[in-house]
Amino acid sequence: MRASAFHINTIKEAPNDAEIASHQLMMRSGMIRKLAGGIYNYMPLGLRVIRKVENIVRQEMNAAGALELLMPVVQPAELWMESGRWEKYGPELLRVKDRHGRDFILQPTSEEVITDIARNEIRSWRHLPVNFYHIQTKFRDERRPRFGVMRGREFTMKDAYSFDRDQESALVSYQKMFDAYQRIFSRLGLTYRAVAADTGSIGGSSSHEFQVIADIGEDLIVYDRNSDYAANIELAQAPCLIPQRGEPRESMQKVHTPGAATCEQVKELLGENLERTVKSIVLATEDEQRIVTIWLLLVRGDHDVNEIKVGKLPGFEQTFRFATEQEIRSHFGCPPGYLGPVGLDSNIQVIADLTVANMHDFICGANEAPYHLRGVNWGRDLPEPTLIADIRNVVEGDPSPSGQGTLSIQRGIEVGHVFYLGTKYSEAMKATFLDETGKPALMEMGCYGIGVTRIVGAAIEQNHDDRGIIWPRAMAPFEVVICAVGWGKSEIVREKATALYEDLMNAGVEVILDDRDARPGVMFAEWELIGVPLRITIGDRGLKEGRIEILERQNTEAVMVDVERAPQTILTTLAKLA
Amino acid sequence: MRASAFHINTIKEAPNDAEIASHQLMMRSGMIRKLAGGIYNYMPLGLRVIRKVENIVRQEMNAAGALELLMPVVQPAELWMESGRWEKYGPELLRVKDRHGRDFILQPTSEEVITDIARNEIRSWRHLPVNFYHIQTKFRDERRPRFGVMRGREFTMKDAYSFDRDQESALVSYQKMFDAYQRIFSRLGLTYRAVAADTGSIGGSSSHEFQVIADIGEDLIVYDRNSDYAANIELAQAPCLIPQRGEPRESMQKVHTPGAATCEQVKELLGENLERTVKSIVLATEDEQRIVTIWLLLVRGDHDVNEIKVGKLPGFEQTFRFATEQEIRSHFGCPPGYLGPVGLDSNIQVIADLTVANMHDFICGANEAPYHLRGVNWGRDLPEPTLIADIRNVVEGDPSPSGQGTLSIQRGIEVGHVFYLGTKYSEAMKATFLDETGKPALMEMGCYGIGVTRIVGAAIEQNHDDRGIIWPRAMAPFEVVICAVGWGKSEIVREKATALYEDLMNAGVEVILDDRDARPGVMFAEWELIGVPLRITIGDRGLKEGRIEILERQNTEAVMVDVERAPQTILTTLAKLA
Repeated sequence: MRASAFHINTIKEAPNDAEIASHQLMMRSGMIRKLAGGIYNYMPLGLRVIRKVENIVRQEMNAAGALELLMPVVQPAELWMESGRWEKYGPELLRVKDRHGRDFILQPTSEEVITDIARNEIRSWRHLPVNFYHIQTKFRDERRPRFGVMRGREFTMKDAYSFDRDQESALVSYQKMFDAYQRIFSRLGLTYRAVAADTGSIGGSSSHEFQVIADIGEDLIVYDRNSDYAANIELAQAPCLIPQRGEPRESMQKVHTPGAATCEQVKELLGENLERTVKSIVLATEDEQRIVTIWLLLVRGDHDVNEIKVGKLPGFEQTFRFATEQEIRSHFGCPPGYLGPVGLDSNIQVIADLTVANMHDFICGANEAPYHLRGVNWGRDLPEPTLIADIRNVVEGDPSPSGQGTLSIQRGIEVGHVFYLGTKYSEAMKATFLDETGKPALMEMGCYGIGVTRIVGAAIEQNHDDRGIIWPRAMAPFEVVICAVGWGKSEIVREKATALYEDLMNAGVEVILDDRDARPGVMFAEWELIGVPLRITIGDRGLKEGRIEILERQNTEAVMVDVERAPQTILTTLAKLA
Repeated sequence: MRASAFHINTIKEAPNDAEIASHQLMMRSGMIRKLAGGIYNYMPLGLRVIRKVENIVRQEMNAAGALELLMPVVQPAELWMESGRWEKYGPELLRVKDRHGRDFILQPTSEEVITDIARNEIRSWRHLPVNFYHIQTKFRDERRPRFGVMRGREFTMKDAYSFDRDQESALVSYQKMFDAYQRIFSRLGLTYRAVAADTGSIGGSSSHEFQVIADIGEDLIVYDRNSDYAANIELAQAPCLIPQRGEPRESMQKVHTPGAATCEQVKELLGENLERTVKSIVLATEDEQRIVTIWLLLVRGDHDVNEIKVGKLPGFEQTFRFATEQEIRSHFGCPPGYLGPVGLDSNIQVIADLTVANMHDFICGANEAPYHLRGVNWGRDLPEPTLIADIRNVVEGDPSPSGQGTLSIQRGIEVGHVFYLGTKYSEAMKATFLDETGKPALMEMGCYGIGVTRIVGAAIEQNHDDRGIIWPRAMAPFEVVICAVGWGKSEIVREKATALYEDLMNAGVEVILDDRDARPGVMFAEWELIGVPLRITIGDRGLKEGRIEILERQNTEAVMVDVERAPQTILTTLAKLA
């Protein structure tokens, strides 16, 4: 490709709504242009990168035996009613009526349609296992789209769905996809972790996320440097930090704590250790008769409640919310900030975190403002908790479940997800096959997503500097750029640049020849912003000595090479790039 | 690909709503599965064909210098309001509100978005010309989707848009696309015609359709066997068939014509020639004050009115309709079937077709039931028509505009369309660039569509027999199928079939090995239905003599070849296939 025949339009300033590096750099390099909130045009430069990602995904999916098909963007509501997601899916599901008033949705994923295909197409155990996938436009009507392609509304996703005759075989299919995903993210040149994850609203019982490590990631990944343990913080088990509850040493006493409504403030005021304080969180659930139950959750002062874990406790199956201030005042006789588990009505359910349950002589709110209690002890000063459970987030330094060392936490961007679904959809939609005995049996399913466009943003978060993007070779829009300095004036520059361009193209290199006759500084800045891995500079000055310059985007030192040996040197340098 | 690892699911009977061969065969072969009216899943077999079409389109678009990008499916209404199409586009435009109540549409085409891109990206004449295209999911909410992928609601289209600095350059861009389209449809192995076409609601002044010739086509193509003249019947000029008006020979007389309300019936009743009769059509237009004007259109009894041509006449610019029976009775004093141009009120506008204007001694309705007039002559019996114009469809046998021979008519399926748009959109949306003098000028545009999924249906209409599809090689899901007869029983069959399969794959042939151990008759019928161009049969019987069978899908006679020489023979045979 010649730059004069391509569309290159870099801009100096990113728009104000671009908060993170990848969004800014994609806008500035001209990869994307905003059409509406969370909806982007992929310009020729951006599309080249997306297609590279798609191709690697496609190759590895095919190699893993998955079959590509294409399911529509617009899907009939009936199938979503069958699965129950028509009601359950929130306003992110874009609903639309056709000219006859029939209900349709724009697909956010395709479990319903693929299950419909499977129940119609697959009759016998002989047709199983099978894994169908497509790479298709998705739509999720995010309330607050942001971060460019990272949390857009319209985006490209690869979603695959496996169908198996039993759980054992389904887990083999799951593992195949897990392995394919590792190959995909490795080939893309990304630093990532596969982490155990919560299955969320989609259901099922086994799930891994593929997280690209990046500081701006919205997910917290808990991992162990000494083992292969890694899990999303939503799921990561938080251990009890106190092996056995100590004996009471202090007597319980009420202390005046004016202006200290948080554990941090109480600690400061009393000159105590945060690990001696207990934090109170009040939640409310409603049953089908709309009768409200009030729950008091207790975690240590330096810990936070994990809402995903709470959602799995008995009594929280449906939905829960924070109690209102009015509910708190009426049940605790006290405003928030001074709550605690001592002297409560028996209709308030108390749930203690594993660590809290083993604390002694602890500090908590007195249910009277502005007072706290210190020297509080289970059994002596208050009844044992209704329930003891892991309800907190892991924190850095918690002991690892591997039994050695401690846990670390880093941020990640979720770019892939594998789920074992079981029979959630096949049961709801009656997707059965005839087993070897001729009896109908439910298909066991798995689903496997990759956010194609999100990968592009995540890769930039992981690979950029203050001058621009630094593409991994596998994702680069072009592998090599030839900057011809003085193109308009120098015939020898034109000749040598064109010859090298053709040599590289013939060698299968994706090369762009910058023949726009721009000033070198402008050219260099533009290609550094765009992030092409290898820049070749050809100019009169170097050619006088028979040399041209090679610069890797990730380096600052250029190398001068003999113009005759340039193609070979470039190929060798490229081969060494990730 | 091994058939055992692919998804093949042919069915005996097409569903009732499949009226035409391509729809039936795509359903029966398992290429597509219906999800909702006009919305289909593309199964792995069908998607392979679509991807082949896409790739050829993409290669030729790139070779013509067009740049691929990707515009979203969901587009903001504001841009469509700017262009005016938000109001003008009928219920085929699917409108949708997002969670915040903002208006969006699902793209049927992308003129608005690309013009928005151009006005933001292109500043100077130096950036022109440029041609952007994408291959993307489209949605048109057809009132009555039918014919499978031929007139679906969701479909894949390639749409390109060129931007130029002036009309001269725009017509060069237009011609480049015209040439690229010829290469595309030739490479696809289709019999097609490029025909001059009406520009329809999209506007502009120059337009060609690419029509795949097929009996079920919804378009009528007028062409000349002796020249390269070809036009859609909507546009094809219908000449005056009577060079000069003859002198009156008969006197006008009223004849009793009971039960003869059509020219055909009058001809039969009177024993006259149809070419002596004149057909009356009554239309109505309304101006802005809703004042109705009644028009009487006259064509010869063997001709039909062309509504597209009528729509371009002075007075018909806005909209027109057939007059109601009540309007006809009140203006003509007579029911439909006996209308004519004699003795009319002067407020009825009479438009005569070119041929009718030169007729003499003709027969027409008497404006009195059940009577006709014969021996009618212009000037003598009635005033000259208000307007004389070409308002009829061409019929087979009309003289060619080339001056030699006559015109023929055939049916076609529109699979591509090139438009010269001029400044229709750039003016409405203020897409300007700075010209060489530094002044803002409107961009000249063209737009160029190819119905990717429709091509698949059209190709099948053109290439099938009673056993199934006969794919042109360029579109075939697989080029070669190896039917291994007795796979389960015979080791030598397995060995030879696998060896040939691997040889062909290594030679770059797209081959599928049928290793499902089905009975030969079942296998053969299935692959004939699917339409793979070349079938190789390997069985014990042939192998005893060291031979295997090669059968071209389009032939009935198989050829036996030496198993050792088979790969070479297959490659040679394939190379000869279109």
